[in-house]
Amino acid sequence: MSTPVIRGVIGYTITPFAADGSVDLNALGRSIDSLIQAGVHAIAPLGSTGEGAYLSDSEWESVVRFSLEKIAGRVPSVVSVSDLTTARTVQRARLAQACGATAVMVLPVSYWKLTEAEVVDHYRAVGAAIDIPIMLYNNPGTSGTDLSVELILRILGEVANVTMVKESTGDIQRMHRLYTATEGKVAFYNGCNPLTLEALVAGATGWCTAAPNLIPALNLALWDAVQNGELAEARALFYRQYELLAYITRRGLPTTIKAGLKMRGQDVGAPRLPLQPLDPQGRAYLKGLLDALAPQ
Amino acid sequence: MSTPVIRGVIGYTITPFAADGSVDLNALGRSIDSLIQAGVHAIAPLGSTGEGAYLSDSEWESVVRFSLEKIAGRVPSVVSVSDLTTARTVQRARLAQACGATAVMVLPVSYWKLTEAEVVDHYRAVGAAIDIPIMLYNNPGTSGTDLSVELILRILGEVANVTMVKESTGDIQRMHRLYTATEGKVAFYNGCNPLTLEALVAGATGWCTAAPNLIPALNLALWDAVQNGELAEARALFYRQYELLAYITRRGLPTTIKAGLKMRGQDVGAPRLPLQPLDPQGRAYLKGLLDALAPQ
Amino acid sequence: MSTPVIRGVIGYTITPFAADGSVDLNALGRSIDSLIQAGVHAIAPLGSTGEGAYLSDSEWESVVRFSLEKIAGRVPSVVSVSDLTTARTVQRARLAQACGATAVMVLPVSYWKLTEAEVVDHYRAVGAAIDIPIMLYNNPGTSGTDLSVELILRILGEVANVTMVKESTGDIQRMHRLYTATEGKVAFYNGCNPLTLEALVAGATGWCTAAPNLIPALNLALWDAVQNGELAEARALFYRQYELLAYITRRGLPTTIKAGLKMRGQDVGAPRLPLQPLDPQGRAYLKGLLDALAPQ
Amino acid sequence: MSTPVIRGVIGYTITPFAADGSVDLNALGRSIDSLIQAGVHAIAPLGSTGEGAYLSDSEWESVVRFSLEKIAGRVPSVVSVSDLTTARTVQRARLAQACGATAVMVLPVSYWKLTEAEVVDHYRAVGAAIDIPIMLYNNPGTSGTDLSVELILRILGEVANVTMVKESTGDIQRMHRLYTATEGKVAFYNGCNPLTLEALVAGATGWCTAAPNLIPALNLALWDAVQNGELAEARALFYRQYELLAYITRRGLPTTIKAGLKMRGQDVGAPRLPLQPLDPQGRAYLKGLLDALAPQ
Repeated sequence: MSTPVIRGVIGYTITPFAADGSVDLNALGRSIDSLIQAGVHAIAPLGSTGEGAYLSDSEWESVVRFSLEKIAGRVPSVVSVSDLTTARTVQRARLAQACGATAVMVLPVSYWKLTEAEVVDHYRAVGAAIDIPIMLYNNPGTSGTDLSVELILRILGEVANVTMVKESTGDIQRMHRLYTATEGKVAFYNGCNPLTLEALVAGATGWCTAAPNLIPALNLALWDAVQNGELAEARALFYRQYELLAYITRRGLPTTIKAGLKMRGQDVGAPRLPLQPLDPQGRAYLKGLLDALAPQ
Repeated sequence: MSTPVIRGVIGYTITPFAADGSVDLNALGRSIDSLIQAGVHAIAPLGSTGEGAYLSDSEWESVVRFSLEKIAGRVPSVVSVSDLTTARTVQRARLAQACGATAVMVLPVSYWKLTEAEVVDHYRAVGAAIDIPIMLYNNPGTSGTDLSVELILRILGEVANVTMVKESTGDIQRMHRLYTATEGKVAFYNGCNPLTLEALVAGATGWCTAAPNLIPALNLALWDAVQNGELAEARALFYRQYELLAYITRRGLPTTIKAGLKMRGQDVGAPRLPLQPLDPQGRAYLKGLLDALAPQ
Repeated sequence: MSTPVIRGVIGYTITPFAADGSVDLNALGRSIDSLIQAGVHAIAPLGSTGEGAYLSDSEWESVVRFSLEKIAGRVPSVVSVSDLTTARTVQRARLAQACGATAVMVLPVSYWKLTEAEVVDHYRAVGAAIDIPIMLYNNPGTSGTDLSVELILRILGEVANVTMVKESTGDIQRMHRLYTATEGKVAFYNGCNPLTLEALVAGATGWCTAAPNLIPALNLALWDAVQNGELAEARALFYRQYELLAYITRRGLPTTIKAGLKMRGQDVGAPRLPLQPLDPQGRAYLKGLLDALAPQ
Repeated sequence: MSTPVIRGVIGYTITPFAADGSVDLNALGRSIDSLIQAGVHAIAPLGSTGEGAYLSDSEWESVVRFSLEKIAGRVPSVVSVSDLTTARTVQRARLAQACGATAVMVLPVSYWKLTEAEVVDHYRAVGAAIDIPIMLYNNPGTSGTDLSVELILRILGEVANVTMVKESTGDIQRMHRLYTATEGKVAFYNGCNPLTLEALVAGATGWCTAAPNLIPALNLALWDAVQNGELAEARALFYRQYELLAYITRRGLPTTIKAGLKMRGQDVGAPRLPLQPLDPQGRAYLKGLLDALAPQ
């Protein structure tokens, strides 16, 4: 639990697809540049937002190579390497390290429910295979496995390079318990957009979010306000962007971020089937939110 | 949604019982004086903590009469008048008003699940019977009925003297949605102790809590820190008292508050059966928490 | 776990109210006679269906006295004596025994969540106060307390006159586990109408239901078919009455049974506020179901 | 909703792994032969039990080719072709058809929660790509998406070759509602082992289960008893095997079936990491259950 290597707003990239369904690396490059130019403190390729779970192995590899080359160390990077098997997760983690990732993120995705021993050994295997830090990621809504606070603390104690915890349950009590159990020493990150105000106030080291693809200035201003201890300003900034944060989370990040980017003139294609592009009603609602927040 | 009549830390009284099981009004009086002397901004008799649900009608009446005489307008008061039938709830609300209560609180306790129309008409009946404000109270864990944000907004719109909302689900998103839907105009109160930091940061008008029976100075300091915009101080104060707040909530308020008061030299008897006094293990744990926070 | 005193279809009475809100004992008498004439194997006054929780103490006493006089031993009776306090539950159990009840039913209704020790001691106190058998009743949807299979088995072991278990969670696995843990020796009763086919097939000793107020012949035919091992007949009978059983359970028993009785020419008044009479849409739906099943 | 092509006990194959982690086709062949010789009415390769989700694409293809060759039409076959993307699911369905599968099974596995339109279009795409029937599979515990009864009925209406429904929620009410909504015409299959008695009594067309790898005679006897309307015999047979059915389901099918097969002298290797072999305590418990049911 030393000084965490990543701090602040961590922007998630989408994975653009061309009309023929192939990955559009040029569009990905523009998206990475946009995030960095907007001022995000780190970049996370291939996360949930990046539809990493929907890519073939070769697509996944090309995206990780390209993303890290494009980021080129301008900001730290954390690559999601989660896979259903331990072997593939290890392989991806090694590749991410070889390509220069600052850290990797591991979500214990599962088909069969995992026992605690299976979860711990999964993290242990990844930890033993690489030298860079691991961000443990808890998101039962997508992974199917809920890591209790006690289990997270156990993994932090047993796997040396698990040094960061991304919590996406939306339950602020998990963060309070992580904080109190480690006397504030564990680096935890908020992964639930509509919980951002309280997570940052509760001491989160960072905010993992796809929102900076659409409203980076507001996201960064919220981060800054909390860091500067400006409570009234933080509250006002949070409520200003609240409905957008809630909507993209509720309606699905790849779906809404891709729709929003297109509204802003950046065509990154549709999400991959069975995911469908945002429907007309959703687009109208999202456009209303965006126009109110960041008129072009 | 005018200026709310009650603001700040609202202290809940316990209902002391003598060895023969009868209500001990002398001890109740001392408990009320303690809370007011400690500086709470308002007093709430006969709430969940006050075991209101376990009293006979005549006991309930004697406690409300005594409490309001004892408070004597030194601070505002909000009396819980909830009952399973509308008729009895109305009767209790009228008595509370006649005794000088500043406001009443109504939790839609139910045996059979209530429809939305039944909930609205219940509040409407109470609202029509009295002139003082009503604090709507949502706590599905004890009432069995969960009032959605939409239903709460509907009641606020349809029953003029429902002007305050006590939210005890522990879900901070409910508060965010109440705030954004009313542009910050609704007065909402936190009823979930371990959620206090975020509720106050999110704009809560008050904190309904039994904790000031044990650690009033820490509770009030947390309130003040948030009101003064001192974010780092608020966080530190919150985490200092966090485990105590979490424990009394998790283990049951009458049970733990009565045990804690006895440790502090104030004997208020046991909770009423089937509720039992805190067991030895619980007492040892609570004593450890109290001694660390407020050594005598 | 000796031979249970009650076996078969146990009909629940409603509690009729006159236009002025008082209990209508004459109508109650006619309702009891109807059930017995229709052939139910036992009668259960003052249960959930009987709005026992909404009656004043004196109303409750008059209903129990009247009901047991009216039943007059023609069939066994089981009286629901549940109350929030142990003292009142004991008092009611004694009264039921004094009035000649065959057995009493105890649901651990709670405001504050009860510990296992508190639940056990509550049953122990009732058990010690009376000589007749107790039917333990598990229904977390109305009581707020879920009794695990393990806890139920513990109470069966520790309180000698708890000899029957009414299970209303709707989870058939609870019944399987009660059956296997006691090698089929515990008498368990189904309290979830739409689960009746499987509960009886799984070995339930009886079916606690308000449905015989409306369709007694179908209910009894289903019971008989299972007892006679006529599987195809049981399935057909169950599916024939399924939607009615599901609807009255989903929409609330006092509300729907009172509406249905009125359609059949038996005016038993409205449920007590905040419960409201069935709305016009619900009445039309219920009438359609009834007309299809038991045309007059 | 014509006569379903598959009826009865559908045995699921495990996928054996050699010590080096590769698929052991010889052991798979022996396992298929065992199931058929034991009398199962159909075989389902590559389901949840078959760890289909943990195989690489080439492994998956080799298993489907081998399995269908080995089955060789001796009994009908239903191949699980579920994948996170629609494209890959279609590709697998086509391959299964080309290899001679009787039917395919499709579980809407998801990372991002799917809308109803996305689920329907996913089934529509698979349906359009093949000529053989589809068994829709609902199992939110592994897929993350719960298909409501209404949505299932919609898909049955809109996609002509979806003709079978495998329900694994464990909620018998889903089956009752499927039955009543289609007047008993939809072919539904039980996928929750400890619900088998009630599912068959409720009219299920089949039982999808891995249990015949271990206790085929008991499984088939239960099926026969219900088909013959022998209710008492069915109940006795069900309770006899109940704890084994509950345990393998609760503890994970690949894990327990592989452990059980080894106890019976059939070494099929360990499940694939992160899944681990059954621990010693689990093995002792399973051995006790097996020895009591099917002593060697």
